[in-house]
Amino acid sequence: MAALRIAACQLNPTVGDIEGNVDSIVEQLHAQAAAGAQLVVFGELAISGYPPEDLLLKRAFTDACDGGLARVVAATRQHPGLVAVLGACEQVDALRRYNTAVFCRDGAIVARHRKRLLPNYAVFDEHRWFDEGDVAVPVVDVQGVRVAAVVCEDVWFKEGPVAEAANGGADLVVVVNGSPYVRGRLDDRVEICAARVREAGVPMVYVNQVGGQDELIFDGGSFALQADGSLAALGPQMVEYSTVIDFEDGQLRGDVAPRLSALDEVYDALVLATRDYVDKNGFNEVAVSLSGGIDSSLVSAIAVDALGADRVHVVALPSRYSSAGSVEDAEKLARNFGIDFSVIPIEPAHAAFLEMFVPHFEGRPPDLAEENLQSRIRGVVMMALSNKLGWAPILTCGNKSESAVGYSTLYGDTAGGFAVIRDVPKLLVYALARRRNERAGYDAIPAAVLEKAPSAELRPDQRDDQSLPPYEVLDPILEMYVEEDASVADIVAAGFDDATVRRVVQLVDRSEYKRRQTPLGPRITDKAFGRDRRVPITNRFTG
Amino acid sequence: MAALRIAACQLNPTVGDIEGNVDSIVEQLHAQAAAGAQLVVFGELAISGYPPEDLLLKRAFTDACDGGLARVVAATRQHPGLVAVLGACEQVDALRRYNTAVFCRDGAIVARHRKRLLPNYAVFDEHRWFDEGDVAVPVVDVQGVRVAAVVCEDVWFKEGPVAEAANGGADLVVVVNGSPYVRGRLDDRVEICAARVREAGVPMVYVNQVGGQDELIFDGGSFALQADGSLAALGPQMVEYSTVIDFEDGQLRGDVAPRLSALDEVYDALVLATRDYVDKNGFNEVAVSLSGGIDSSLVSAIAVDALGADRVHVVALPSRYSSAGSVEDAEKLARNFGIDFSVIPIEPAHAAFLEMFVPHFEGRPPDLAEENLQSRIRGVVMMALSNKLGWAPILTCGNKSESAVGYSTLYGDTAGGFAVIRDVPKLLVYALARRRNERAGYDAIPAAVLEKAPSAELRPDQRDDQSLPPYEVLDPILEMYVEEDASVADIVAAGFDDATVRRVVQLVDRSEYKRRQTPLGPRITDKAFGRDRRVPITNRFTG
Repeated sequence: MAALRIAACQLNPTVGDIEGNVDSIVEQLHAQAAAGAQLVVFGELAISGYPPEDLLLKRAFTDACDGGLARVVAATRQHPGLVAVLGACEQVDALRRYNTAVFCRDGAIVARHRKRLLPNYAVFDEHRWFDEGDVAVPVVDVQGVRVAAVVCEDVWFKEGPVAEAANGGADLVVVVNGSPYVRGRLDDRVEICAARVREAGVPMVYVNQVGGQDELIFDGGSFALQADGSLAALGPQMVEYSTVIDFEDGQLRGDVAPRLSALDEVYDALVLATRDYVDKNGFNEVAVSLSGGIDSSLVSAIAVDALGADRVHVVALPSRYSSAGSVEDAEKLARNFGIDFSVIPIEPAHAAFLEMFVPHFEGRPPDLAEENLQSRIRGVVMMALSNKLGWAPILTCGNKSESAVGYSTLYGDTAGGFAVIRDVPKLLVYALARRRNERAGYDAIPAAVLEKAPSAELRPDQRDDQSLPPYEVLDPILEMYVEEDASVADIVAAGFDDATVRRVVQLVDRSEYKRRQTPLGPRITDKAFGRDRRVPITNRFTG
Repeated sequence: MAALRIAACQLNPTVGDIEGNVDSIVEQLHAQAAAGAQLVVFGELAISGYPPEDLLLKRAFTDACDGGLARVVAATRQHPGLVAVLGACEQVDALRRYNTAVFCRDGAIVARHRKRLLPNYAVFDEHRWFDEGDVAVPVVDVQGVRVAAVVCEDVWFKEGPVAEAANGGADLVVVVNGSPYVRGRLDDRVEICAARVREAGVPMVYVNQVGGQDELIFDGGSFALQADGSLAALGPQMVEYSTVIDFEDGQLRGDVAPRLSALDEVYDALVLATRDYVDKNGFNEVAVSLSGGIDSSLVSAIAVDALGADRVHVVALPSRYSSAGSVEDAEKLARNFGIDFSVIPIEPAHAAFLEMFVPHFEGRPPDLAEENLQSRIRGVVMMALSNKLGWAPILTCGNKSESAVGYSTLYGDTAGGFAVIRDVPKLLVYALARRRNERAGYDAIPAAVLEKAPSAELRPDQRDDQSLPPYEVLDPILEMYVEEDASVADIVAAGFDDATVRRVVQLVDRSEYKRRQTPLGPRITDKAFGRDRRVPITNRFTG
């Protein structure tokens, strides 16, 4: 068997930007060929970006993707013998469509593998868009090395296409992926693939895409495994990168990038998601309603790390119930990060509304209506600034714990375009903020923000723990109920108070209508609210 | 072959209300048995209500459904020989779950059919929740008649389970369904089923559920077809009803309910959807922000027809730009329908906000920011009334044409819990309003509302046609682009102006983020915004 130089190109495509995505692919193809690569591998549906969702139902879209693929194929003509493998939508006729890995060489498509296993759980809807692959895994001779390609989910189950490729005589299997991030998923991928290569006795090169796409983050971290399952190469996480891997005498050899720590991985994923949402949607400057609390402080930090201080505006919107400390903390944070800071007291609108309501609210004591009013006034102000000054999107600051139990005001603090920490439980919010300060080497997020008791400050002396269990209790209950679909009985059996569990579960169930109207945000857990958890609003089951 | 009396019971279950659903089933079982029925047929997933979505992923839920099914099975003990057929979730083990039709007799389950064809397109995600049926279609002897049962999608394709049932010796096929409404779908169902029975040479009884469930409406209209495809019986649309059908000498015989006209069908579907959303979610009184325009007038009429005048509040929220005629028209409508009417001018809050914005907006001319501001103030007022007085949900009034092109203010007129006419194009809004007046026998919706030029009244002399093409042009473009996934080229080829088509398509694409944050509403077309159309927000493809 000859030696082979492989480039594993983890690119950051933009869904629907077919020309731009093809430009990047062709550019890498030329660059890697110039550096001696003979096999250049890209991600899943690399032409369209992954996942294009119902755009796939438009014939104009799949035709445009075909045009993009033709450009990549043509580019291989300049590098005789070089093989490019990439994912592309294959629209066969009006009825049949496949998620395909394409081998291109010398200006022609020389082989195709149609994805067999179509994930249709969690965030995936692939049976909606694709037919199951119905042809044998092809094995292509690349400079004397017999190479097979499969697609993403194809490697997740035993006795699947990887084993078939090995039985078909493959010396090497390449996997093209659009595998979305959740905490620790890279370890899962390596473990699963190690099992596959050990079963099949064939080494593997796994190429993932990178970048944010609506709710999904793709974390890169492409890798290569020897036939015994050991790690031969690893690309960096959260950035575009092409990892060069040499294959000789059945062994793979390449650089192993350092792994991010568990906290840095989440933080950097949120930064990537935020940057890509803003940039890919063509936005410029963003804004955050900065209360001086932990959530909006963390979101502001992420925004600065994603976009640079020049592109971030923060606004303090104190009401009659806001503490002086909150505005001071907000101002201090803005100064630390070097971002534009405004203060707009909401009292004039607040007073005007209360006066308007007098004839309608007469004789009724203050309650949630008056609390929500303040939050909604803030929403109106932020949206007016957004409309007038072009600050968009407004980044919202609700965390997963609040989102779960509905501890938020619809059209108030939830008003905006991107919910940066929507999938981050409150305890993790604290950990990320502390870690951000560690990385900065000082309290960029002021110590007071980390130390004070959480409060919405919508009535005098309000504190979160007047309405909710402490987050040390709430977060693990939510993890069991939301992420693990555990029942009340299961959670109580795990040691939590029955009444508390029932109250939390009821709050989660009753808040579904709110979550449906809040902006999307990046997924970092095993089950995020959004496309990952599809429960009815109209539902009387609880348990 | 003996004679057989069949009851086709189209019930209105509530998703997750297992006890309540089983109560209704058992009650019908006893009532129909008392009336001589020997075969009693219910809908798909009748225990849980359809579709229960990700509740199916909770073991506590499927266990509870099993408990509900056991109650139905036990109830058959009281009617020796009677067979009940109903849809139920069949959780076999941790990994396998089927959408099953169950035959119950004499206190036991005597046969099961596992749904073969799992729809995973449009609003359906059944591959997410179920495995494909893997056993032969059972044929059960019911008083000497050999009866087979299949489930919904099983009848939509040739050479499927219906043919198999006939080959297996069935004299009659029953179909349990949760088939959601769109305009004219009943005709489609009858046509498709007629093709199936003609192919298989076997008569059919088709039982659908009825009622609103989040975005979906189930329209009932259960029916029976002779083996030659001719209609033998038809249940009424949009109401709970049990149709009695006699089967003798291979012929079915029952009542044929009158069909609703095309307009009445849509109107009654919206009424049903609104009533069920409100009642099944445990709400009491609803509110509408009534502008005096056609959309909010129609929504108010639907609300009254759904809930009764006592449960509907309408509020006029005039700004400095509202015409006097608008408030008069609103008041007149409220008087005609006998509903509670309030006027809350928004000027005080409007003036307060404008003053607050002076330092921030200085030197910038009035634009969309000031227009949206008024709409958002109205949203704040409606939500405050909702929070304080318990008026919930707020019914929102955006139509499909506006929703498509983003002609709405997020957190303003879109603020609320149920978007009654979200899937109704503007021209159909007019037709439904005219028809409502026809049915009333007078202009309950004032004639002026139907006659004036559409306007948002957010600046002096504003009219919709300053921002949008006339609805006679816009609506057909939208139908092609949204419902048919036609390309710009296709639409231009159909005779529309190129620049207009491009502008409309761009507006649709750019408004996706707005639609994701608006309340759900009932689906009446072949492709509604919501679960029916899953396009990315981050997307650069247009065409």
